[in-house]
Order: sequence, then C-alpha cells, then structure tokens
Amino acid sequence: MNKASTSDLMEKVVSLCKRRGFIFQSSEIYGGLGSAWDYGPLGVELKRNVKNAWWKSVIHGRDDVMGLDTSILMHPEVWRASGHTENFTDILVDCKKCKKRFRADKIGNQCPNCGGKEFTEGRAFNLMLKTFLGALEDESAVCYLRPETAQGIFVNFMNVLDTSRKRLPFGIAQIGKSFRNEITPGNFTFRTREFEQMEIEYFCRPQDADAAHEKWIADRFQWYVDLGMTKSNLRLRAHDITELAHYAKGCTDIEYNFPFGWSELEGIANRTDFDLKQHSQFSGKDLRYQDNLTNEKFFPYIIEPSGGVDRATLAFLVDAYHEEQIEGETRVVLRFSKELAPTKIAVFPLLKKNAELVTLAKKIKNELSKEYVTVYDDTAAIGKLYRRQDEVGTFFCITVDVQSLEDKQVTVRDRDTMKQERVPVAGLKNYLADQFLKNNS
Amino acid sequence: MNKASTSDLMEKVVSLCKRRGFIFQSSEIYGGLGSAWDYGPLGVELKRNVKNAWWKSVIHGRDDVMGLDTSILMHPEVWRASGHTENFTDILVDCKKCKKRFRADKIGNQCPNCGGKEFTEGRAFNLMLKTFLGALEDESAVCYLRPETAQGIFVNFMNVLDTSRKRLPFGIAQIGKSFRNEITPGNFTFRTREFEQMEIEYFCRPQDADAAHEKWIADRFQWYVDLGMTKSNLRLRAHDITELAHYAKGCTDIEYNFPFGWSELEGIANRTDFDLKQHSQFSGKDLRYQDNLTNEKFFPYIIEPSGGVDRATLAFLVDAYHEEQIEGETRVVLRFSKELAPTKIAVFPLLKKNAELVTLAKKIKNELSKEYVTVYDDTAAIGKLYRRQDEVGTFFCITVDVQSLEDKQVTVRDRDTMKQERVPVAGLKNYLADQFLKNNS
Repeated sequence: MNKASTSDLMEKVVSLCKRRGFIFQSSEIYGGLGSAWDYGPLGVELKRNVKNAWWKSVIHGRDDVMGLDTSILMHPEVWRASGHTENFTDILVDCKKCKKRFRADKIGNQCPNCGGKEFTEGRAFNLMLKTFLGALEDESAVCYLRPETAQGIFVNFMNVLDTSRKRLPFGIAQIGKSFRNEITPGNFTFRTREFEQMEIEYFCRPQDADAAHEKWIADRFQWYVDLGMTKSNLRLRAHDITELAHYAKGCTDIEYNFPFGWSELEGIANRTDFDLKQHSQFSGKDLRYQDNLTNEKFFPYIIEPSGGVDRATLAFLVDAYHEEQIEGETRVVLRFSKELAPTKIAVFPLLKKNAELVTLAKKIKNELSKEYVTVYDDTAAIGKLYRRQDEVGTFFCITVDVQSLEDKQVTVRDRDTMKQERVPVAGLKNYLADQFLKNNS
Repeated sequence: MNKASTSDLMEKVVSLCKRRGFIFQSSEIYGGLGSAWDYGPLGVELKRNVKNAWWKSVIHGRDDVMGLDTSILMHPEVWRASGHTENFTDILVDCKKCKKRFRADKIGNQCPNCGGKEFTEGRAFNLMLKTFLGALEDESAVCYLRPETAQGIFVNFMNVLDTSRKRLPFGIAQIGKSFRNEITPGNFTFRTREFEQMEIEYFCRPQDADAAHEKWIADRFQWYVDLGMTKSNLRLRAHDITELAHYAKGCTDIEYNFPFGWSELEGIANRTDFDLKQHSQFSGKDLRYQDNLTNEKFFPYIIEPSGGVDRATLAFLVDAYHEEQIEGETRVVLRFSKELAPTKIAVFPLLKKNAELVTLAKKIKNELSKEYVTVYDDTAAIGKLYRRQDEVGTFFCITVDVQSLEDKQVTVRDRDTMKQERVPVAGLKNYLADQFLKNNS
C-alpha cells in the first residue's frame, strides 16, 4: 500500500474528514468560527478511542497513576501563581496606517495588510481567554478559561495525596478542554483556540526525576507505536536550552511527520519543584511531601507528559490514510489499529429486497453489537459498501447472501488483505475474537 | 440496610466525597471558586462510568442514534437564532443604598444585604458567559461559551444527515461541558456554572413526534433504574403549560428525590420544528429534510432527552449511600451497580510483611486488572481495608492469606452480603465473571 503523495495528503485527509463525518467546521452554516471544529459521528468514536486507550494505558494499566477531572474555570490566583497572568503573552503592535493588529514577531518591516511602516509600541497580549463570573462585568469578576489542565492537578496535589494514601513516586492524570487565544491558529485541528489535552503530572523525589523523565519519554513514544502509528513518522526532539521555560530542567517532544512538517504531539518535561513551590507560596498552604521513612519534608519534582488529544487524533488519521490501485480504481483505506477503528464490523445483506437476508443480517449485527461497534448497511451494491467501509477503516465486512440461508455461513472480508472467508454464523463470535486478538495493537 | 436519615444524608455524602476523593472544591487551596468542583480519582471513574453507560445505551446499543462532539465556542449568530442572546436572561436590580445586585424575583420588599427599600429598574442580565476571541476586546470579538450542547447538534443536522445517509427517525447525541452564569448556584454539584450535559436530539416526522416523545420518556427513565437507582426515588413530572418554552409542545422531567427535595435529572421535551426553522432562517441554509418516498420537504420535529452528567452522578452517589450497624459499629456502603462502581475489585495480602503473600496478591491484582478496575492495598489491617472498600462501593475484596500459599485458594468477600467464599486462584476469573453476570445491572 502506498501513502498518498505528501503534497496533497493533507487536503485529502481534510476532504475525507468532511465527506465521511469525521470532522466538520464549527458553526459551518454561519460561515464557520475560525479554528473551531466539531467531531462528527465517526470522528467522535475515533477520538473517544484515543482517549480511552490513553486512560487505560496510563491509569488503569498502572498502579501508580490516578485519574482526575478538574474544572475549566479556576480561581484567578492560580494563574498568578503559575505565571500565566504575567508571562503567557504574545507581543502585539498596531499598524498606524490601517489600525490592524499583528504579532510583533510576524510583521517584518511593513504591515502585511497595507504596507504601512509605522507601528505602535509592542504591547503584551495575554493568551488566556477571559470571562466574567457573577452579576458584575468588572475586574473583580474576571475569571479565565484554563490554558492548560496541568494546574488543576497541581492545586489538588494534597487532596489526592491525602485521600489516596499513595507514596512517591506517583502520578495524577487528566483529560480535558483547554483554551488559548492563539493569534495564528491553523493546520486544520492541529492548532486551535479550543483543544483537548491529556496530561500526566508524575511526582517523584528530586534524585529520581531524571530516570523517571527518561522512562516516561520511552513509554509515551511506545504508546503511539502500539496504537499503530508508523514508527518512522515519529521522532523525539530534545529542547534546546534556549527553548526551555526558566524553571524546566529538560523537555523532549514527541513529533509526528505531518504533511505540513514535523510537529509536536506531546511534550515530556522535567518541571523540577517549581509548580508546588509556587502554589505553596501563593496559597500559603504547605504543599511539601512528608517522607515517613526519612522524616524529611520536601517539594517533589514533577515529570509532565503533556499530549494533545486533537493532535494525536489528527496524526492517527493522517498515518492511517492509504491509497492503492485496484483494477484501475483507487481504493482509499484508513488502516486504523483494532483499538482505534471507529467501527469494528459492518454487516450487509447481498440483496436488500430479500427479506430473509435482511433479517439474518440485522440479527447478526445486533448480536455482534453487544461486543463490537457494528453497523448495518444496505444502501448500495456490495462493492460500493466495501469501499465505504475501507474508507473509514472498518476492520471486517460480513456479507449475508442467499447461500447463507442454506449453509448457515457468511462471507467475512478483511479490510487490509481484502481476502474473503466463509465462516459459520454459529462460529462468528469466536472467529472474530481470534482475528481481533491477532490484530491486537 | 438503611438509608441515613434525610436530614444529614447530604452532609454525609459531601463529606464522604471529600474524604475519599470523589469530589473536591475547585481551587480549594485558594479558598475555592464558587460553585466549581473537581472530580477526584474515584469521582472521575464514577463519572466516566455514567457517561460510558449512557453512550453505550443511546449510541452503540441502538441503530438510530449517532454520536457528535461539537466545540464549546460557537459562532455568535447561533445564539441569536436560538433566542439565547435575547431571552436567556434573569432580571437584576441594584440596591440604591448598598449598591449590591440581586435577582429581582428574590428580594421581596427589602434588600437582603442592608435592608434598603429602593432599587434601580430591573435590567435583563444574560446568563451566557462571554469571552473575546482574537486580538481585540470589543463587540466584534465577543463569543459565548455555549449554555447548552443542543445547538451544536442542530447546526450540524445537515452535515450528519449527508454523511450518514440516515433516514427519519434518527438521533444525534453528545456529551460535553456547558456554562451558565447562574446567579444562585448551589446544592453541591447540582447547580453549577460549569457543568456537563448528555443530550440527544431525535429527529422525526411531525406525526410521529408524540409517540417518540413517550418512548424516550420511558427509555430514559428505565436507564436510571437499570443502573441501580431506587425506583421509588425517581418520578416523572410533566411540565405545566405555563412552564413550557413558547415553541415546546410538551416536556416531562425525570426527577430524583434528593435530600434537598425532588429535583430535575433530565428533561425530555418535544421541541417541535422550532430549532431547524430558526437556524434555516438565520443562516439562509435550507435545513429541511427531503423525503425520498413522498418527495416532500419538511422540517423534522425534535424530541430532546437532555440530562445532566453531574446531576446523574450526584444522584447515583446519594442513592448508593447506605449505613448499617455491624457489631456496634457503623458500616458505610456505597451500593453502586456493577457498571457504575469506580473500583470493581480490591486485592489484599493478609500480612504485608510476608513477601510471598504480597507477591501473590500483586500477581492476582495485575491479572485481574486486564479486565476489571482493580486496586491493591496493604496499608491497614484487613477489617479496616474491607471498610475502606465498602465505603467507596468496591464489589469484591480478595484476600491472600498463608493458607493460600498451600491450597492455592483465596478468600473472596461480597460487598453487600459480606459473605466470604474460598475460591481457587486458577478459577478466580471464571468465578468473578459469573458473579458480575449475576449482578449485572
């Protein structure tokens, strides 16, 4: 199978997403809202599968990480302590001629709009989205939409420690929406103002932080590979010292080879003890960890694997996209792994006008639905039905034909090999269980 | 088993939620943010189970409903079309003496703050949370956080119809956060400014709407019962004609008997063809459905079962709370159904200093973790460990003792009956599978 040529791959993926109901532009009937996207019936299943695979891997599959789900609206003091109120800014300037506003680092010598050459002084523009809580719209009511889920974890460190009785090292993980007023969003769902994060904050002794950092980099890289992402499309990139936040001791990005270039899926940072120290100072609460063995009190170091749900979903989509020539026609296949495929099985009657075939097909569909996400379709000829399912990555197509009524067997077709096999209806569940086990990502 | 007396039940549930890590106050170390809550390690699992049970029931378990996940930020025109910009308001007045602001319908004759008797004229206060997108903070940049997920479904009606090839009747469902600037939030997680909804919009022919409405009321009621909620704590309440939105033909609430009174978990409304008509008019896009059989074009009616995730989670918590007297001590048990229990199984070694017991217990824990959310604990004596798990609703406790090393059997204790049974380690998986099947909600 061949990947589509890079030049038009992105265009093809975006088009497929819209055509088949993976991703739509938000508020499209009103001309759309810049950089906001809606996940359609197939997209929401794919994204749920990505999130569930992450939850299973980092929480249920481990003994040392617990889940959390904190609110988007937080006390404004949180952002003072974290430094976001002061430092989470872009420098903006206004063109004196056309009055348009631009990022200072993007204008060169002339206004990109009117060619003007004079600009106002640069002004810091905070990237947090602001709102007002309560009946007054004044400074006292200002509240921000969180620009990252991480702070919700830091401020709950003691709550989780006290209620869970965990000892270091342990982690707290959450999935949730964050918001940033990006001046230049773009690349489809890659950079948006509203996005979903999956973040782990792993607390450990300072002397164990380097080893934990290395281990998380390896574990998180392997997660993408285990879910079927092409290894050669992934790379690790250690941040240069000039890129690092002042408190960070190191950060390594997991990057994907997108059609628009290598770009970050996830950053894994060693944040040192900055976060808990800051929140201790600003809240006046002692957030140090009490070691029962040595009787020491200290601020744990934090290793933070911080991934983007939308970015991971987009990378899995791009990576799954394949085209191949079959008898002079182009077959498009999304080669999702078993765990990620939005639909696992499709069931068709060969003839939609034969009531017996339809009844049997629907019966099989209902039975399989108890275990797998399964769809029924009879709205086209069989060849077209196959292509439709290939295009959205459905693992198996099951066809019920006239012969099925006699021999109680159906045809099972494999998405990737297109091989067809006759399987007894009574043995279908075991057959599929075996196949999915084989294909297990 | 007895429910705690109603008067202090709510207090006990709130205390348990905090003590055991179900729900914490948001930004607690900064004094909290009014009416915002964070779900702790056990709470997030419970809430996930509620959401997954809903998704399985209304999407994967049916042929006629598809999922969707739309953005929180939408085009402002959406809220003009829906009527929220103009009508989603409370009337507020300011006390002329102390300048405080109140809901006009809550003040009586005197200011609740200073006793003042003179107020400004009532002013409509919109309940949508406002923010600004882009580099300017002016009217052109205003954007709202959605006050309901429903509109994201309506504006995607054609996108889903076109890409899914569904025919009427069919539904679109989504789970997501919404925001309302409530003047008087309260009752723990019941009424908050940030909350999560699970909404279904079911599109049908006008002549089929009444029957579909009745069916959804029955189906949604049964969902709560199937997940273990006490039937006598649930009731249906049909809205009086004066309560109905002007466009609605009928609405029935599913209410739960909370300690603070019967309150709405979910409303199931017949919204007529109002929504698609409005969005057709405001967007200039024809959102009528084309019937291929009759060749008619018309606006489908919409039946909307709209539930609150946080409210359902709170109701399941309250309903599960039981106290009983055992040998002079109070045993607290959360009697969650199998599907909702945040932890299914806990494994303990009887003696934490016996390395062989610990090894076997951890091995069993790791094996069971592949299928069930399972925890290991050895931080207290066995009686205390049992109570801890009872208090958070864990279905089974498995204890490994010295005898286990010889006879390869372990003790399995049932949460509700407290009966203990010796079960061979080799047969543990089958035993548990049978038990969970029996307890299947």
